[in-house]
Amino acid sequence: MRAVQVAQAGGDLELVEREVPTPGRGEVRVRVEACGVCHSDMFAKEGVMPATPFPIVPGHEVVGRVDEVGPDVLGDWNAGDRVGVGWFGGACHHCGPCRRGDFITCENGRIPGVTFDGGYADHVVVPADALAHVPDELSSEEAAPLMCAGVTTYHALRSSPARPGDRVAVQGVGGLGHLGIQFAARMGFEVVAVSRGRDKEDLARKLGAHDYIDSEAGDPGQALAEKGGAAVVLATATNGEAISALIPGLDRRGQLLVVGAAESPLQVDAMSLIGPVASIAGHASGTSIDSEDTLRFARLTDVRPMIETMPLERAAEAYDRMMSNDARFRMVLTTGQ
Amino acid sequence: MRAVQVAQAGGDLELVEREVPTPGRGEVRVRVEACGVCHSDMFAKEGVMPATPFPIVPGHEVVGRVDEVGPDVLGDWNAGDRVGVGWFGGACHHCGPCRRGDFITCENGRIPGVTFDGGYADHVVVPADALAHVPDELSSEEAAPLMCAGVTTYHALRSSPARPGDRVAVQGVGGLGHLGIQFAARMGFEVVAVSRGRDKEDLARKLGAHDYIDSEAGDPGQALAEKGGAAVVLATATNGEAISALIPGLDRRGQLLVVGAAESPLQVDAMSLIGPVASIAGHASGTSIDSEDTLRFARLTDVRPMIETMPLERAAEAYDRMMSNDARFRMVLTTGQ
Amino acid sequence: MRAVQVAQAGGDLELVEREVPTPGRGEVRVRVEACGVCHSDMFAKEGVMPATPFPIVPGHEVVGRVDEVGPDVLGDWNAGDRVGVGWFGGACHHCGPCRRGDFITCENGRIPGVTFDGGYADHVVVPADALAHVPDELSSEEAAPLMCAGVTTYHALRSSPARPGDRVAVQGVGGLGHLGIQFAARMGFEVVAVSRGRDKEDLARKLGAHDYIDSEAGDPGQALAEKGGAAVVLATATNGEAISALIPGLDRRGQLLVVGAAESPLQVDAMSLIGPVASIAGHASGTSIDSEDTLRFARLTDVRPMIETMPLERAAEAYDRMMSNDARFRMVLTTGQ
Amino acid sequence: MRAVQVAQAGGDLELVEREVPTPGRGEVRVRVEACGVCHSDMFAKEGVMPATPFPIVPGHEVVGRVDEVGPDVLGDWNAGDRVGVGWFGGACHHCGPCRRGDFITCENGRIPGVTFDGGYADHVVVPADALAHVPDELSSEEAAPLMCAGVTTYHALRSSPARPGDRVAVQGVGGLGHLGIQFAARMGFEVVAVSRGRDKEDLARKLGAHDYIDSEAGDPGQALAEKGGAAVVLATATNGEAISALIPGLDRRGQLLVVGAAESPLQVDAMSLIGPVASIAGHASGTSIDSEDTLRFARLTDVRPMIETMPLERAAEAYDRMMSNDARFRMVLTTGQ
Repeated sequence: MRAVQVAQAGGDLELVEREVPTPGRGEVRVRVEACGVCHSDMFAKEGVMPATPFPIVPGHEVVGRVDEVGPDVLGDWNAGDRVGVGWFGGACHHCGPCRRGDFITCENGRIPGVTFDGGYADHVVVPADALAHVPDELSSEEAAPLMCAGVTTYHALRSSPARPGDRVAVQGVGGLGHLGIQFAARMGFEVVAVSRGRDKEDLARKLGAHDYIDSEAGDPGQALAEKGGAAVVLATATNGEAISALIPGLDRRGQLLVVGAAESPLQVDAMSLIGPVASIAGHASGTSIDSEDTLRFARLTDVRPMIETMPLERAAEAYDRMMSNDARFRMVLTTGQ
Repeated sequence: MRAVQVAQAGGDLELVEREVPTPGRGEVRVRVEACGVCHSDMFAKEGVMPATPFPIVPGHEVVGRVDEVGPDVLGDWNAGDRVGVGWFGGACHHCGPCRRGDFITCENGRIPGVTFDGGYADHVVVPADALAHVPDELSSEEAAPLMCAGVTTYHALRSSPARPGDRVAVQGVGGLGHLGIQFAARMGFEVVAVSRGRDKEDLARKLGAHDYIDSEAGDPGQALAEKGGAAVVLATATNGEAISALIPGLDRRGQLLVVGAAESPLQVDAMSLIGPVASIAGHASGTSIDSEDTLRFARLTDVRPMIETMPLERAAEAYDRMMSNDARFRMVLTTGQ
Repeated sequence: MRAVQVAQAGGDLELVEREVPTPGRGEVRVRVEACGVCHSDMFAKEGVMPATPFPIVPGHEVVGRVDEVGPDVLGDWNAGDRVGVGWFGGACHHCGPCRRGDFITCENGRIPGVTFDGGYADHVVVPADALAHVPDELSSEEAAPLMCAGVTTYHALRSSPARPGDRVAVQGVGGLGHLGIQFAARMGFEVVAVSRGRDKEDLARKLGAHDYIDSEAGDPGQALAEKGGAAVVLATATNGEAISALIPGLDRRGQLLVVGAAESPLQVDAMSLIGPVASIAGHASGTSIDSEDTLRFARLTDVRPMIETMPLERAAEAYDRMMSNDARFRMVLTTGQ
Repeated sequence: MRAVQVAQAGGDLELVEREVPTPGRGEVRVRVEACGVCHSDMFAKEGVMPATPFPIVPGHEVVGRVDEVGPDVLGDWNAGDRVGVGWFGGACHHCGPCRRGDFITCENGRIPGVTFDGGYADHVVVPADALAHVPDELSSEEAAPLMCAGVTTYHALRSSPARPGDRVAVQGVGGLGHLGIQFAARMGFEVVAVSRGRDKEDLARKLGAHDYIDSEAGDPGQALAEKGGAAVVLATATNGEAISALIPGLDRRGQLLVVGAAESPLQVDAMSLIGPVASIAGHASGTSIDSEDTLRFARLTDVRPMIETMPLERAAEAYDRMMSNDARFRMVLTTGQ
């Protein structure tokens, strides 16, 4: 089978031929149809995490069909089922968090494309508990980015303290943000998009935003406060200063939701949280059933990612395009299978 | 009457003779019996807040007896009732937060000893909604520090996500911390006290701590993580770095509770919140009924502040002793009334 | 001024001429433009509550314009402001619940049209804290039913444990239910309407329902369970047996939300709650700011009540039409002012 | 090995000799040291649940030592480990609730002594995920009742909306209630015990109750309301009328917590929930890690069940004593192993 791998930390994405892998106990092999290219693929490519075994095949926004079911698989997974796999690559089911049912914080959690071979390939083998059913109404290309960018924003928003009718700000109109805006609007929030410049305002409004803040036109935190403040700010920026700048835009009891790794630390003045009784919360992706919920909600409310597709062979190009922020808004690799 | 005032921002505490004030509409005059000296009195003394009208009488941990009831006072307050007043000095009852019942974040909130004359005096006049009943079982000297240091720690802990049996760390064994440890232990938490050096370990354990971390003996965040991590860290330190250092000591879904102004900003790595799905929350004191709850809980579970008393005339000395961290653990001024 | 009053418990609605009332301290007079007719007007008409002072003018879904502002009114209310008043007719601001900010459970709470004269009249006098601003985008006739039927369903749903994407059942497609369906759909829930017969299915779907259960075609609780169960059932039926019948339709951790008086008690088998860890919760209307939130949400997401209007003089006819369930779906009295 | 079994629904408890069972995949054999006798053993004995395979060995409050570990067991369980097993007898790990981590509502959940052979025996075989570690500080006899009566009351209370300092009523001073009182007191609640007659008042106070209501001396709901109402009522009575009678004793936002099967349905007037915005919630035992938390809390705060022990051979006598409410307060069978 074809696979795109990185030979060592910091190496290039290179197309190779590999043996089709065999699913072990509790595992399922998926014939990949589409795989999203996510900023977090950088974790594998650059070898940020010590757990990454090189050579590694990146890719954790995988959609395809069940191909072969290994022994002792729990649940009803059958060859031909269309399934997706996201950042959550299976839990150990015996550590403390797992025994509490909090699989996403599993002490031995696995990540496709980071701790084991992912979806930049014709086939991928994953633990069965990492699988999500994909509804017929979504194409594989559309479903793929929902497995990470989608579940992250949807699940963060639905788990947040914001209630329907509350003002919710989405920082960034990119891979995550353009989904966050759509989800937030469909949840009945009053949505304020925050981004640099005026270029993205029209699109943001088309996606469902009711208002827009150009973060370069002044202090975005103050601008948000002047609009009444946000019950929740969903921060998708990757810069600690840019994220911190929105804290003063929180309403009383408001929450800054951080969903992505930032290159620099957030700077937080204690009083900026104490006075308004505000908070900053981290949110980590979601499990396979959270992904199913995401797909179901996307179907129910007609949320779709904006994607650019490229064949698997052009993975390196797709990755570069994503890293340079040129993608509008998610790159998806297709296998033609 | 005697009063201790600060003439201008940065001025000294000086004893003066003043006219006994008359309560206006909705106000009550309290004959002060005891007034705690709190680190936040510094806000008034140094003129940190623009709203402070100089000369100002500090003091927001006031206990005394109702002396005169102004016109149109809501509720059943009568001369002779023993009452307390804390940081919460009354709400406007018509702004957005007030209409939502969230008085502590009132847009026009007042603070005794900061935005109007406080309790370093023989008498103080306060809005009736700032009054808390004080139960007979507590002396006025004991009750005073519970009006700010007490309600802040009690109310923060009872409102936190920690559940009985969970591990809760209290950072700092000082004015707030020595109360936080007592409250946490009586709430059924497994309490870990975190402080510098070994000096305070015995006391911390006597107050109810089950375990102790010397923050100078190594990385306190790591030490806390090795004990299993904390569901809640109640941070009473006044240094942003010291507070941030405990974030890695949070358990999954854990929360860092910040209750006091810090001199320097917290430095927060986004991943340190995302991985464990952790959060940082500000907590702001409490209203007068939260103070009543605090006093009631102190009575129920036998929590008492450790205090040093001084007569009102020695306010400046008491303040200095508090500011230099020499107090064990709260200074309380007494009027002899 | 014209007013429609009930002379004694169980009496008829009769049009009378009255003096225009003068607002007292903290009160505001509103020139009524529209007033909804609610099933709870029966409380006044039949004298169900001992607190009702006869003769009484019913009406607690009032929209009009501020006409005169009494002395000592808190907040910025000015002649000409368009305002609404609902079931919440002001709180005492000094009882325990009020001091906790929980105005809706005020020990001395007042109700327009039940404990004091309401909106079946040209003018009504209400405490200022009972007033909600009405946005321009809504006509007075449309806004009126949102002051009780609207806030009750919107606020119940937004405060419920259901999260966007969850399945929510709305029992009853009537005055409350036809609003509940709209709100639920705009909040991103998967909405199942439950009603007797097939007549209302088309309308329910038009209002936003994704699915429909005919409660006469079989066991509705079982039918709901077969669809996967509901995270929340919003019960608007007035019959205890009918409400109880939906408990088996709750999903795990599901909640039956009861918002209206039922003529007969609910019958609850303990095991039906223990097994699925389910609950039954009462929900009581909302305060004036909850009403503002309701109007704001209706504007944001384009929710409108279906109404039939009648002039004030025909109040008795409108009331009968409502009581006999003939209204499609809310009767609104207009004053022509 | 010795086992006490019931041959068919409604049959007697009879001592028999059986083969020592062998643990299958994912299972562990436990050498039983003590097994509590619980009212729910009646489910097995009387064949209430269709899933019970006769002959059945009852017993779901088991404490003993790991004897043999079957193949493919997740987690670190070793021969000699002291472990406990409660009502939770393992989850399927692939149904919807399990995928959400909500094991206690597993669609295929198993129950020791009800759906498979339980602890009235020298040995028992259980799925590994049903095992809880037992700390050294607790004897096996003491730990046994904590596996069901303990975890049920502890976990219900810690998961309830009551906050430290709130008033919590515990209805019934029996097998569950005498533990509920202890747990509630150690959690910092103000505890009101409710029971029939005055006999149990002294004991209730000794266990930690601050107040007592004799439910025969008048209307217990009203009596509770007069004390200020309860944030939570933990109902351990087995009679629907007796439970319902306490609803009027709930404080605003209060919750009636139902933890056990009642012989008759609760009668709930909708207005009794709507007015105070109160609720009724079912609570279902807890998983194995909830049991570990229970044991840990019991150790931390010195909670112990009051027990009467009998040798395994006298199981029938112990069961009768429990069913006739003569036990003070939990019967525990011992094997002498």
